[in-house]
Amino acid sequence: MSADARIGLIGLGTMGAALASNIAEKGFDIAVFNRTTQVTRDFAAEAGDLGPRITPAETLEDLVAAIARPRAIILMVPAGDPVDQQIAALTPLLDDDDLIIDCGNANFHDTDRRVAEGFGPFMGVGVSGGEEGARHGPSIMAGGTPELWARVEDVMLAIAAKHEGDPCAALMGPGGAGHFVKMVHNGIEYADMQMIAEVYGILRDGHGLDADEIGDVFDAWNRGPLQSYLIEISGKVAHARDVATRKPLLSQIVDAAGQKGTGRWTAIESQHRLAPVPAIEAAVVARNLSARLEERARGQEVFGPAPQRFDTLDRETLERGLIAGKVLCYAQGFAMLSAATRDFGWDLPMARIAQIWREGCIIRSTMLDAMASALDGEPGVNLMFTDHFAAILRDTHDALRQVVAQAALHGHPTPALSSGLAYFDAMRTARGTADMIQAQRDFFGLHGFVHVNGKADQHGPWAKAAATPKV
Amino acid sequence: MSADARIGLIGLGTMGAALASNIAEKGFDIAVFNRTTQVTRDFAAEAGDLGPRITPAETLEDLVAAIARPRAIILMVPAGDPVDQQIAALTPLLDDDDLIIDCGNANFHDTDRRVAEGFGPFMGVGVSGGEEGARHGPSIMAGGTPELWARVEDVMLAIAAKHEGDPCAALMGPGGAGHFVKMVHNGIEYADMQMIAEVYGILRDGHGLDADEIGDVFDAWNRGPLQSYLIEISGKVAHARDVATRKPLLSQIVDAAGQKGTGRWTAIESQHRLAPVPAIEAAVVARNLSARLEERARGQEVFGPAPQRFDTLDRETLERGLIAGKVLCYAQGFAMLSAATRDFGWDLPMARIAQIWREGCIIRSTMLDAMASALDGEPGVNLMFTDHFAAILRDTHDALRQVVAQAALHGHPTPALSSGLAYFDAMRTARGTADMIQAQRDFFGLHGFVHVNGKADQHGPWAKAAATPKV
Repeated sequence: MSADARIGLIGLGTMGAALASNIAEKGFDIAVFNRTTQVTRDFAAEAGDLGPRITPAETLEDLVAAIARPRAIILMVPAGDPVDQQIAALTPLLDDDDLIIDCGNANFHDTDRRVAEGFGPFMGVGVSGGEEGARHGPSIMAGGTPELWARVEDVMLAIAAKHEGDPCAALMGPGGAGHFVKMVHNGIEYADMQMIAEVYGILRDGHGLDADEIGDVFDAWNRGPLQSYLIEISGKVAHARDVATRKPLLSQIVDAAGQKGTGRWTAIESQHRLAPVPAIEAAVVARNLSARLEERARGQEVFGPAPQRFDTLDRETLERGLIAGKVLCYAQGFAMLSAATRDFGWDLPMARIAQIWREGCIIRSTMLDAMASALDGEPGVNLMFTDHFAAILRDTHDALRQVVAQAALHGHPTPALSSGLAYFDAMRTARGTADMIQAQRDFFGLHGFVHVNGKADQHGPWAKAAATPKV
Repeated sequence: MSADARIGLIGLGTMGAALASNIAEKGFDIAVFNRTTQVTRDFAAEAGDLGPRITPAETLEDLVAAIARPRAIILMVPAGDPVDQQIAALTPLLDDDDLIIDCGNANFHDTDRRVAEGFGPFMGVGVSGGEEGARHGPSIMAGGTPELWARVEDVMLAIAAKHEGDPCAALMGPGGAGHFVKMVHNGIEYADMQMIAEVYGILRDGHGLDADEIGDVFDAWNRGPLQSYLIEISGKVAHARDVATRKPLLSQIVDAAGQKGTGRWTAIESQHRLAPVPAIEAAVVARNLSARLEERARGQEVFGPAPQRFDTLDRETLERGLIAGKVLCYAQGFAMLSAATRDFGWDLPMARIAQIWREGCIIRSTMLDAMASALDGEPGVNLMFTDHFAAILRDTHDALRQVVAQAALHGHPTPALSSGLAYFDAMRTARGTADMIQAQRDFFGLHGFVHVNGKADQHGPWAKAAATPKV
């Protein structure tokens, strides 16, 4: 076995196999290994034209021996313990300057920890786009030092999705920065999907449309400002038929949403960062509630079904409301990235992030091009306030109000859209209502407040009594 | 110095001093210590009639020597590192069976850790009620073994608030259970305060009421179903005048809410427990957004002020909407306690929790009596589904719809009330909209779905193509 593979890859599951094929197709020799040897053999046997570029290895030693020095080895194994185990098994076989690249869905805290452990050169790289993206061009969010990135940049740029020729791959920052950005990407994905599901519910239960009619609505919207991968596939899944029954597919799917944790991680991390992403939190909550099938059935028995038919909301208003909601959920996501830049001392390339999300990843959308431009001049700005998106919001927020109001009146839960609207209104109210909260806190806990005259640690009149001896 | 004090207490800040005085007043001899000796001296000097019961100690050694064996020592120091430092300083001076009781606002994970460290008998006890509660009767949520609880139960019951003679103190469960329940209590407190602040905003900016008129509204509500400490003090703070300017106090407080972290902990932990508490999350987000004064001012410049005057919502509807919101926020909190019982193998006394929250704590309210009854027969039930609260919700949810809808239409952010309504509607919809989310996930990631025929891991028609060789 000659040691000339450009790169190695461990883990030939759906995503790993797709990524390995992508790498080979772009002209790089690749050595591959899977814990179950038969998977490795099948992968090589089915490689077809790509076969000559692929070296199947049946042991880790063979894998390592097949890669040119200094080595670079991609891990595509399940996030969590399997990654640590794989690193532990691999490092004794490696030279000091060999590079391990975790391309799985790691929690960025784990990536930070692995870098800190210092077992050797290590990168954490977020890869978005599902199997299709991994095979034909994902969006790649890399974390690591510029030196390490330089060693694999050619491969990463080659396999990445292209937006008008521009590769959707970039270095985000050190340590866990790549996986952090990927996490927020997934959080936005959760919120975007939830808003679509809310509008879908209004079309189905409020307007009484059948699945094909709903598919037609999404198809039409995908030719307008909402054009995006998620709207596109919403139309496709609405038109799809169930394989078993030939009935509309959506009607045959139990309405309990799964999740693999990245949305929840985003919600949790947003709380640590004091970076509000209410639309993402609402989306995670909605998935959790969807899984409570028995409780929801009980609720319907107790109260009767919630969503009512109504015709006080036309489709154009729905579309425009969803546009506003979508802008607000991206605004929250990018604001969370800004908070990370501040808290972690990173320098996340905000505009570049919008650029590399334009193709390959699940949240790709025509809007991202304008987001890249908007963030280019003022990277830390809330997207809401940029000329382009402020104009969109001025044009659409009344529609979002109509959607939220009509949904509330007619029993349609719209937690993500509602929270988007509440965020918008809170973020444009110079004088809010937290004075009441501060007054209450001072009353019961003497926590103090900032006076409008600028003085901190002020108290209400009750503090005089409290200032007398405490016994 | 004779070793006959019933109990010791370390930390004579606002809460510690109040608790020590409460203990002395109930007839227990108490030895007290504060890091700054002058604070200890002042406390003893100002003790008045309680003096004979109080032994001031100027060293930890003196403190320990003054307490009867086996000793029990309360810590009332800031949560986090100070607690660990105090434990480390104290344990070398103690006998093996001496008991340390952390009555501060510890994170329950820290309490669990401290128990696991096994330095000796340890309890984590949540104490709610602010300074006033600590001095004259708090609500006490204890965590520890029944044996440890038995050693201090007489003191705890004596100092606790009483509801018609019933002490508001009880053992919640082992380890961090007491601090967990206190955390969720604070989460509910956040949500309740936020809902009140949202309604306050509608009264102030929507109806144009002045502070005294708003105070009158809260005063009136406090004589109805909303009767509670938080509504009571909302009236009081609305009527209060600023000490410096004699203007209405609320108008003189900067609208940026502080927080000490327990609400955020609740939001984070709810995500770990998959126990949705969207009203609490919304309240935490609202506090975070309130702190962004500059961004909000910019938002108002860009979009104009959000909240508009409107008269399409009468006060009775507002009151009834707030009743529904309040029930839903408690329902979420209690459901989170149920999730903890399940996840941690605890047996949290659900009905008893409602009982000990009836007096002493910040969220005390007449509603809690009915909650205790409702949870008595079916401790794991969602309060929404119990006869009493289902009847209230049937009677008030339309009012909550009106509040949310009118607020949305007129630019008033109501994130907590909106999320409460969305929770209510989601929890009574047997057939929701997560089928769309599952279809999308299967389309882009082949995640599979449960078919309505009961089969798991089913796929849409696109999976056939994907089942061909991956290369």
